[in-house]
Amino acid sequence: MKTDVQIAQEAKMKPITDIAHDLGIQEDELELYGKYKAKVSLDVFKRLENKPDGKLVLVTAINPTPAGEGKTTTNIGLSMGLNKIGKKTITALREPSLGPCFGVKGGAAGGGYAQVVPMEDINLHFTGDIHAITTAHNLMAALLDNHIHQGNSLNIDTRRIVWRRVLDMNDRALRNTVVGLGNRGDGVPRQDGFDITVASEIMAILCLATSMEDLKARIGDMIVAYNMDNEPVTAKDLEATGALTLLLKDAIKPNLVQTLENTAAFIHGGPFANIAHGCNSVMATKLALKLADYVVTEAGFGADLGAEKFFDIKCRFAELKPDCAVIVATARALKNHGGVPKANLNTENLEALEIGFGNLEKHIENVQKFGVPVVVAINKFPTDSEAELKLIFDKCQALGAEVVLSDVWANGGDGGAEMAKKVVDTIEKKPSNFKPLYDVELSIVEKIEKIATEVYGADGVEFTKSCENQIKNIEKLGLDKMPICMAKTQYSLSDDPTLLARPKGFKVVVREIRISAGAKFLVALTGDIMTMPGLPKVPAANHMDITEDGEIVGLF
Amino acid sequence: MKTDVQIAQEAKMKPITDIAHDLGIQEDELELYGKYKAKVSLDVFKRLENKPDGKLVLVTAINPTPAGEGKTTTNIGLSMGLNKIGKKTITALREPSLGPCFGVKGGAAGGGYAQVVPMEDINLHFTGDIHAITTAHNLMAALLDNHIHQGNSLNIDTRRIVWRRVLDMNDRALRNTVVGLGNRGDGVPRQDGFDITVASEIMAILCLATSMEDLKARIGDMIVAYNMDNEPVTAKDLEATGALTLLLKDAIKPNLVQTLENTAAFIHGGPFANIAHGCNSVMATKLALKLADYVVTEAGFGADLGAEKFFDIKCRFAELKPDCAVIVATARALKNHGGVPKANLNTENLEALEIGFGNLEKHIENVQKFGVPVVVAINKFPTDSEAELKLIFDKCQALGAEVVLSDVWANGGDGGAEMAKKVVDTIEKKPSNFKPLYDVELSIVEKIEKIATEVYGADGVEFTKSCENQIKNIEKLGLDKMPICMAKTQYSLSDDPTLLARPKGFKVVVREIRISAGAKFLVALTGDIMTMPGLPKVPAANHMDITEDGEIVGLF
Repeated sequence: MKTDVQIAQEAKMKPITDIAHDLGIQEDELELYGKYKAKVSLDVFKRLENKPDGKLVLVTAINPTPAGEGKTTTNIGLSMGLNKIGKKTITALREPSLGPCFGVKGGAAGGGYAQVVPMEDINLHFTGDIHAITTAHNLMAALLDNHIHQGNSLNIDTRRIVWRRVLDMNDRALRNTVVGLGNRGDGVPRQDGFDITVASEIMAILCLATSMEDLKARIGDMIVAYNMDNEPVTAKDLEATGALTLLLKDAIKPNLVQTLENTAAFIHGGPFANIAHGCNSVMATKLALKLADYVVTEAGFGADLGAEKFFDIKCRFAELKPDCAVIVATARALKNHGGVPKANLNTENLEALEIGFGNLEKHIENVQKFGVPVVVAINKFPTDSEAELKLIFDKCQALGAEVVLSDVWANGGDGGAEMAKKVVDTIEKKPSNFKPLYDVELSIVEKIEKIATEVYGADGVEFTKSCENQIKNIEKLGLDKMPICMAKTQYSLSDDPTLLARPKGFKVVVREIRISAGAKFLVALTGDIMTMPGLPKVPAANHMDITEDGEIVGLF
Repeated sequence: MKTDVQIAQEAKMKPITDIAHDLGIQEDELELYGKYKAKVSLDVFKRLENKPDGKLVLVTAINPTPAGEGKTTTNIGLSMGLNKIGKKTITALREPSLGPCFGVKGGAAGGGYAQVVPMEDINLHFTGDIHAITTAHNLMAALLDNHIHQGNSLNIDTRRIVWRRVLDMNDRALRNTVVGLGNRGDGVPRQDGFDITVASEIMAILCLATSMEDLKARIGDMIVAYNMDNEPVTAKDLEATGALTLLLKDAIKPNLVQTLENTAAFIHGGPFANIAHGCNSVMATKLALKLADYVVTEAGFGADLGAEKFFDIKCRFAELKPDCAVIVATARALKNHGGVPKANLNTENLEALEIGFGNLEKHIENVQKFGVPVVVAINKFPTDSEAELKLIFDKCQALGAEVVLSDVWANGGDGGAEMAKKVVDTIEKKPSNFKPLYDVELSIVEKIEKIATEVYGADGVEFTKSCENQIKNIEKLGLDKMPICMAKTQYSLSDDPTLLARPKGFKVVVREIRISAGAKFLVALTGDIMTMPGLPKVPAANHMDITEDGEIVGLF
């Protein structure tokens, strides 16, 4: 059997100019980055202002398990399947971070016969977007520390600087640092730390901005510190808005690549799915909707986090109307939710499957609450039994969801054609009545309670004492009328990663609320959120290489 | 009068494919980065293996003064002038760092009618080379700290880690840090610090590598720490070589842009001119020599540092044979060397000029010692008097140097045509007998003494006690047979920045020798070398902006 790398390297890529031409992108709207990558100018929006948008399909999943669900693979395969059945389709995905690439993953761009290419470029520096964000973020930090060093006329409280530094790297040693040591000329000593770049608020902003103007306004609004009177100090106060925006002038333009079967793919932006909203950029999704009849996009983690934030944050800000949601599941993963350990997942177990199905059931109900028609895609494994698949199909249909098998990993677009037909049929037969879950005008507590009870199935929410004070403070600042970005374990519908399937009788504990005033959401943290990962004992980097004739080893 | 930005923005750029085509670069050897930037494949070397090299011209200068000499401007203007007189010419320059751009400078790509374009891209992320180096450097650091955290089987002494981290940013608060704070899972606490990326040994390596193989070997040799037995620990020991090289797979390819008059320009690599050698990449220079009849390149600071390192480090490693050196000077700067303060430089002062000429005189003698014919280019200012220019001309000619006026800032290639003719004549009439100043087989002390006495005009060299111990240690490691990279003030021929013109009767004090085992040179430090600049009270960043319609403000 061929490895993912072998399959990717054997791909017959088309010049990206051909892919762009087929989408109707004009030559002067395309900026090439080599032969197989390009950035697309935002001028396309003006030219196609009056063209109606295509259909928007969200690919989401059950809560992830060690068994693997294949959400990105299904996403890419569905777009290839739609292409196969004659629908002009673009897939819109997130950019991978270098941190996990050199850590455990060794790269990520789908798998098997459902990948995006050129894999090695997408996984390394790509078109430099993440580097641009790293630079803009750290320029903000340098301007902030310089301001303090040069006299601190804004009276910034060095104990209340909320703007950390970032690197696109898994580097645990940078989580907690002291900076400004040395002599008088070497700055003001203070506690600091680094996050991975994808956790930067600037990444979230870049992905939510609807124009250069919106980008600049959001950057200016970022709160980077508080002064001695407890008032927020923003990027604008530090006269950083223009320079930071300038550094992002190219990063805001969507990147065009292709799938193994030459389906167009926008890969643009990749915010963390916990402290941020975990979706590719609004710009890429909107541009894809102007250029294609079907747009297939994804959101990080399971539907409780990913789809909820896609709907309540991204779609709300960008005024997007999703037409269908595909929930990816596997029989194996559902059995794992039903209590079967990873080693025994190859054996039929209908009892465990029935219990584990509760997880999928809740996600189906949740997506339906948003008024979006559901297609369940069962990512096929050779070990799936007929009886297991029948059980899943019957139960999905009983809930009013469509259900279909996906075989894109092994068969690419051919393996996704049936899924594609099901999605097209569903969109044609079942109109979407999309609406967000909550009104932003509700109080912070009400919004969080609504998400926890209605989406997670919790009995209620407890707020820590310090959290209650934070909420009062946010209300005082007038920043409480923003959407909530939940930071919760992805492994459970609850805030306890050990509670699988469909947990009941639990309360969610919110321990902290962070303000992302530029991204324009409030992050509600229900546990320790790791914003700077570490490398494992044997990092993937140790096995990477490039030979004299350019062959790449160890990526993937 | 038009500003540099206005002139740059009015430039009629040719598509970079046209520039490449005129150089004989084939379509599949070109990787576009937008319409006006491209990387050139190293495959060109194979194809043109048997083609003879063009002529190599180094542009260097007197010791810099606050009056400004215009070395880069003269470099660009000379290449445009050569083009004007019908010579196929490429200029090869260094890539600017973002740090100074957001600090004091606000960008750097020549000036007046002698600039390289697209100025805003060259000054911002360009083709991502510096970001790739930042990433590779910090991956090395992350792998090192991870190794220690995961059990430290190499027995690394955390007090003797010589590999700092880097950012392409002026950020004084990062000069001295403590990392690894927090809990047990957050790494091992230790003292650390950040340099600006251009000071990274990886930048020096990228600029000296003569092939992918050489690049990889040099990266593997980098000493990052010492173990408890005082033995060096290298990148190779930490299994980092392959991943770091992989991150540089595109960065090693030269970047092609153009001057305001469409002369081809390679802008590639930009190592610090103090702790590194301060020249653009060997790859770019060699590629330019294959593609053009004349290649005009530069080296950082004055000829005592820049030209010496260009000759003794870059040309030695790359087996380059420079045909001519242009030494840039101005009457104003020479008067400043002669003791005239900046405010009075517009007034004729032959006495001061005569004293200050000593600086130029020594640089002429120095370059002649390397066997390279000299052309002095006097960068014209409206305030220069006839008598002043005559004095400089007479004195240069008495030394056996050619001398010519340059007017490229005001008149571009037309203002450089006479200089170009002088350079062509000189190369035709005076054959170069280039040889490095010293044999690498000499001892460290002998090599440094040779540079200090013969190039700087010192009476001798003193080594501190700790420096003597370092030298013994380097000899024990067998690393003493490498060229010397002097780190000295650029403002004086001596190691005292206040001694202008041609100082005599001084001794150079060497305080530290650092090993750059991958770059393959020894850095001899004669003073405090700043490897992480700070931002000024009002950073250039504060005035930068980009408008909704894409107009860039404040860059330059």
